[in-house]
Amino acid sequence: MFQSIFSPSVQHTIDLIGIFVFAVSGALLAVRKNFDVFGLAVIAEVTALGGGLFRDLVIGAVPPAAFTDLGYFLTPLFAAGLVFFLHPEVQRIETAVNVFDAAGLGLFCVVGTVKAYEYGLNLPASAALGLATAVGGGVLRDVLANDVPSLLRWDRDLYAVPAMVGAAMVAVCIRFDALNAVTSGLAVVTAFVLRLLAMRYHWRAPRAWNRRSTAVEVAETEDRDGKVPHYEATA
Amino acid sequence: MFQSIFSPSVQHTIDLIGIFVFAVSGALLAVRKNFDVFGLAVIAEVTALGGGLFRDLVIGAVPPAAFTDLGYFLTPLFAAGLVFFLHPEVQRIETAVNVFDAAGLGLFCVVGTVKAYEYGLNLPASAALGLATAVGGGVLRDVLANDVPSLLRWDRDLYAVPAMVGAAMVAVCIRFDALNAVTSGLAVVTAFVLRLLAMRYHWRAPRAWNRRSTAVEVAETEDRDGKVPHYEATA
Amino acid sequence: MFQSIFSPSVQHTIDLIGIFVFAVSGALLAVRKNFDVFGLAVIAEVTALGGGLFRDLVIGAVPPAAFTDLGYFLTPLFAAGLVFFLHPEVQRIETAVNVFDAAGLGLFCVVGTVKAYEYGLNLPASAALGLATAVGGGVLRDVLANDVPSLLRWDRDLYAVPAMVGAAMVAVCIRFDALNAVTSGLAVVTAFVLRLLAMRYHWRAPRAWNRRSTAVEVAETEDRDGKVPHYEATA
Repeated sequence: MFQSIFSPSVQHTIDLIGIFVFAVSGALLAVRKNFDVFGLAVIAEVTALGGGLFRDLVIGAVPPAAFTDLGYFLTPLFAAGLVFFLHPEVQRIETAVNVFDAAGLGLFCVVGTVKAYEYGLNLPASAALGLATAVGGGVLRDVLANDVPSLLRWDRDLYAVPAMVGAAMVAVCIRFDALNAVTSGLAVVTAFVLRLLAMRYHWRAPRAWNRRSTAVEVAETEDRDGKVPHYEATA
Repeated sequence: MFQSIFSPSVQHTIDLIGIFVFAVSGALLAVRKNFDVFGLAVIAEVTALGGGLFRDLVIGAVPPAAFTDLGYFLTPLFAAGLVFFLHPEVQRIETAVNVFDAAGLGLFCVVGTVKAYEYGLNLPASAALGLATAVGGGVLRDVLANDVPSLLRWDRDLYAVPAMVGAAMVAVCIRFDALNAVTSGLAVVTAFVLRLLAMRYHWRAPRAWNRRSTAVEVAETEDRDGKVPHYEATA
Repeated sequence: MFQSIFSPSVQHTIDLIGIFVFAVSGALLAVRKNFDVFGLAVIAEVTALGGGLFRDLVIGAVPPAAFTDLGYFLTPLFAAGLVFFLHPEVQRIETAVNVFDAAGLGLFCVVGTVKAYEYGLNLPASAALGLATAVGGGVLRDVLANDVPSLLRWDRDLYAVPAMVGAAMVAVCIRFDALNAVTSGLAVVTAFVLRLLAMRYHWRAPRAWNRRSTAVEVAETEDRDGKVPHYEATA
């Protein structure tokens, strides 16, 4: 039933777009980190396919789609090639990349939740796995680049929350048997718009209590690579 | 047969306690690393469920228990919430947390070994996977926090060895068909007590030969976050 | 059919040699990082078995060979023990270790590609997974040691390319139904020799365009641990 939400070819095209924009975001980080062309390709693949790969391993859908669909595999290579040759231009349009990345986020949290539910997970677990699908690639990208994952850092605009909202909307729709092309599209758009708003207005999540007083200090001492400096607990 | 060592509800309660204390240890690291509330939740989930997730993927028990049991999923969120609001208090009782963590370690090495054996692994592999269940979450926690895993560092009290002993005791009991509630409880307690003793008396493992002469120097230059400074081999 | 390329015992011996040399390379990094004896053993296991473990999880061959074959599990421990006691000697013969590592690389890219194809993956995916088998352990080793993976760095001699060539040769042979002991041996030797040449002549891959002007500067400022310094994009 769920497979019929989107026609297969539409679904596939949407997937490839999401994979492409995630791969671009990975490749841009690789350029900033001074990796070589193979590093670019590896990071692009991992960023684009890592979340879905994790989901497929967890639900037992092996071999994962990342390894059975040639388009999934080649799209990140294409993205890496583009960034390799055009990275100054791509960096100039970083806003555009971020918008695409937000679209990928919205899309993957919905697709991931639906696929996990199809494989028999309960609704909260499906939503959690949908979230993991959407953000997993970015976490792997940052781990490979030896950074603290953006996802975890207080000084980054909200990224997980929009995906959580999208995944939760899908779970609620499934619960009330109301998942169709319209409602799932709505979930994608909601996550997408929330992420855009978070970037536009720099929405951030709170840190643990008693620590906010140090927020300004930390923001100022943050080094140019965006590494959070370590310091002792104030409490 | 093995499932009857503990009654399911007792087993489940024990599991949840282990998950809770591991989640607290992850959330405390997240506070120290200045992550936001979602970072706290993610690290708590990964620390608590990562080891079991790895075990379940390896033995082909998909979807893993972490995604099928709602209690497993919600417990780390609850722990993260507690730490978020009460972290100065939690840090003050860090000894208590360490004691609970030791209990989790003892428990998970035994549970992991038994589950791996039930899924058909041989005894040495079951013990190895029991060890991985017990320490895997902590390794993932440290990798996400961009630290060298505590497990690998010479300047930390023994952590793997107590879990190895517990897992090996279970394997020996299975070999001689003597695994029951008493012997497996004994294995849990042995690993637990060994870890407590290692913390109390700062038992540490040796490093490779010819390097011990630099031990004092390194301990002194260690920075405040506990990062081991890198230096060249003395040999 | 493919199983008969090598007799099982020959295949097994070759596997163990590859595992051993990978484990030595991991253990040597652990010594340089000042890990204790358990850290040495863990890194040796992960480096030697990580790539194959990932491959087996992806193709659904669970439990993975790393956990069913006792020889696979004990060989890295043996390698870690050797390095623990003899590491100055092992470092002195680092060239020999690199040669063995190159042999492991050639072997694993071929074995991994064949096994992935046997489990039903298409040819490009099989070659990609063969590559992942060959390089995966090294990436995990570097992530655990909190380094940027060698594989991704522009200032290291080519490592992925020889494995890519070997895996691609196997895929082409399978495509034309010409995979036998001779052709697969040829693929191993080609990857092996290419890696040796890359080390001998310091072949490196290009970075993204417009960045090469800074190559000299970076090489000079690289710190003694080989960490690539971060700097802003020049573009």
